[in-house]
Amino acid sequence: MNNNHLRFDLSEYQARLSSTRVAMQKAGIDLLIVSDPANMGWLTGYDGWSFYVHQCVIIHLSEDPIWFGREMDGNGARRTIYMDESRIKTYADHFVQSDQYHPMSVLGSIISDLGCGNMSIGVEKDNFYFTHAAFEVLSAALPNAKLQDATRLVKWQRIVKSPRELEYMRGAGRIATAMHARVAEVLRPGIRQSDVVAEIYQTAIRGVEGVWGDYPAAVPMIGAGVDASAPHLTWSDRELRSGESIFFELAGVHKHYHSPLSRTFYLGKPDSKFIDAEKAVLEGMAAGLDKIKPGNVCEEVAQAYYDVIERYGLNKPSRCGYSIGMAYPPDWGEHSASFRKGDRTELAAGMTFHFMSGLWFGDWGIEITESVLIGENRHECLASSPRELIVIN
Amino acid sequence: MNNNHLRFDLSEYQARLSSTRVAMQKAGIDLLIVSDPANMGWLTGYDGWSFYVHQCVIIHLSEDPIWFGREMDGNGARRTIYMDESRIKTYADHFVQSDQYHPMSVLGSIISDLGCGNMSIGVEKDNFYFTHAAFEVLSAALPNAKLQDATRLVKWQRIVKSPRELEYMRGAGRIATAMHARVAEVLRPGIRQSDVVAEIYQTAIRGVEGVWGDYPAAVPMIGAGVDASAPHLTWSDRELRSGESIFFELAGVHKHYHSPLSRTFYLGKPDSKFIDAEKAVLEGMAAGLDKIKPGNVCEEVAQAYYDVIERYGLNKPSRCGYSIGMAYPPDWGEHSASFRKGDRTELAAGMTFHFMSGLWFGDWGIEITESVLIGENRHECLASSPRELIVIN
Repeated sequence: MNNNHLRFDLSEYQARLSSTRVAMQKAGIDLLIVSDPANMGWLTGYDGWSFYVHQCVIIHLSEDPIWFGREMDGNGARRTIYMDESRIKTYADHFVQSDQYHPMSVLGSIISDLGCGNMSIGVEKDNFYFTHAAFEVLSAALPNAKLQDATRLVKWQRIVKSPRELEYMRGAGRIATAMHARVAEVLRPGIRQSDVVAEIYQTAIRGVEGVWGDYPAAVPMIGAGVDASAPHLTWSDRELRSGESIFFELAGVHKHYHSPLSRTFYLGKPDSKFIDAEKAVLEGMAAGLDKIKPGNVCEEVAQAYYDVIERYGLNKPSRCGYSIGMAYPPDWGEHSASFRKGDRTELAAGMTFHFMSGLWFGDWGIEITESVLIGENRHECLASSPRELIVIN
Repeated sequence: MNNNHLRFDLSEYQARLSSTRVAMQKAGIDLLIVSDPANMGWLTGYDGWSFYVHQCVIIHLSEDPIWFGREMDGNGARRTIYMDESRIKTYADHFVQSDQYHPMSVLGSIISDLGCGNMSIGVEKDNFYFTHAAFEVLSAALPNAKLQDATRLVKWQRIVKSPRELEYMRGAGRIATAMHARVAEVLRPGIRQSDVVAEIYQTAIRGVEGVWGDYPAAVPMIGAGVDASAPHLTWSDRELRSGESIFFELAGVHKHYHSPLSRTFYLGKPDSKFIDAEKAVLEGMAAGLDKIKPGNVCEEVAQAYYDVIERYGLNKPSRCGYSIGMAYPPDWGEHSASFRKGDRTELAAGMTFHFMSGLWFGDWGIEITESVLIGENRHECLASSPRELIVIN
């Protein structure tokens, strides 16, 4: 077994496994099938761009996890997981993207051979890498099993970060700071969006002193001029014009841990609409950040932000934050707690959130956000970019 | 309606819609729910990094397609699709990543309101963005509908490329050539993997004369030294050593159209194992490329390649190619035809494949591949990197 790719001590993986097993027992789950790539990596160390084919890890209440995937990815498992060779199970290549064969039939046989075919088995029903076909084939292969939902079971175990995880996220925050600094350096009327993004990527992957850059779970999202009305457009070779705004939503990433950060730039002299929105967003964020402390609940942070911007006559119909950490495409959100009405998740030290305070209207938008770590009695912003509308003259 | 983001003439979208409707009727499908981001974009123009929440397009046999997605992504639809405002339907933000609410219940109501609740409805059951939970909620909301599988229905419509699509793929091929040329420029013992990848990204996104670079459906995959035994590992800050090989599997991308290309580099004097493998792969590729012509079937290409490398005592248990074109993460493969035993898909002019001739063994590997366009009576390689084991001294 070659562990030179493992990013955490074995003891940390064992602690994660223990907390997951406790949650399984609470939920009445005997065996858990984990398909989310971040959950798989968090539990076993597995890392590789192989989530475009069916794969998972199987969590048993007493035995070591099993990695299950495509035959050609077995060597990737051997290179990255902490378990030994006996815990690697693969399926042959003719099961890949076939109308005749499905990998979940192989998984079903493996589970039966383990004597677990009649167990209560948890599956991540609303996980983007667990398709309906996967469920159909698996349940047909395990007629005596009780398949129950565990979409967020592992995600909730991940919400409080360990010291080593926080070290990675602080490194990611430093990269995010460097990425936005690079944008400020190169942004000028006439530059092509794609040339700005090329500089962002180079800065992101090179990283900063002692912290190399990993790939983000979402690519740079940008909105220039009227396109700023939409939060999730990407770039083209359109040239930036003076007299227009452009926002960049970027994440610094280290060893798959993300620190997202958005800033809005204005080329030229911003009109009062932008000045007023900046004032509302900054005051709203200050009010929200003030609520980010252990013991408060998520919706209090959201309400504090909404109250301020509504006083300015602005309205945000979407949540204003979500838990962050280890992530793989397509999303750097952790899919557990959100800053929104009705979310009563109690904040605790070691949690990390992207305070997504972005506003999008019919023909414009503004994004100034922070990634935040909750400390014992204060919050810490993971990046250190000036929190303002950045004016480029 | 603002169509300044549309990448094809309206007539091309209409032709795509017609061919899809013919396939629907053949399959006995009255209404088609398309969740694959590339299928959605190919049919309607929709583009945006929003596939981490539930969204789809609804294809009706006689009415214009409907875009369905998250409220905040409605403006992205307005900016990118060809259909008018009346064809945009959204769900409120509290449906996002919630245990109480699911967007598919809203989709079910929309379909009922259209009077389509009792129809034969096609869903992409094994598409990575159509989860089992999505199916459960949708089928509960449409008790009188007959939901049937249409995983590959649209993908098969995409397999023969139009002149405009080929223009984009040739541009992507030129970018892939530039990316590998940049690797050859910077590769040397002592350089960090992450610094090489930073240069790859900068080159990829800047693009080449007249062709800007879009984001790839899979990040650069690399294998250095023993890690070359695994096809899908990514980078770290490990320094490259002389006396070891490293492969790069990269795609040039323009407007979401991909031209993947792999090359293997050797730092120093390659041992006979690599020289022999290079000879086998190149001779095998020549034999396979010779079979890539209209009228032949996919498995003939695969067999020609396998026959040669087996004569050299090498074995590849995986497919050696797949259809390529427009793609979004996590995969640049088109999930229709593959170069493998049993695939009787007849090759036709305008099809494009990644000839994935990579070989991975216990402690080493080699990747030298081509992306190929099938012409009337000859094939065309989309990139023009020297097809060889590249030795860096």
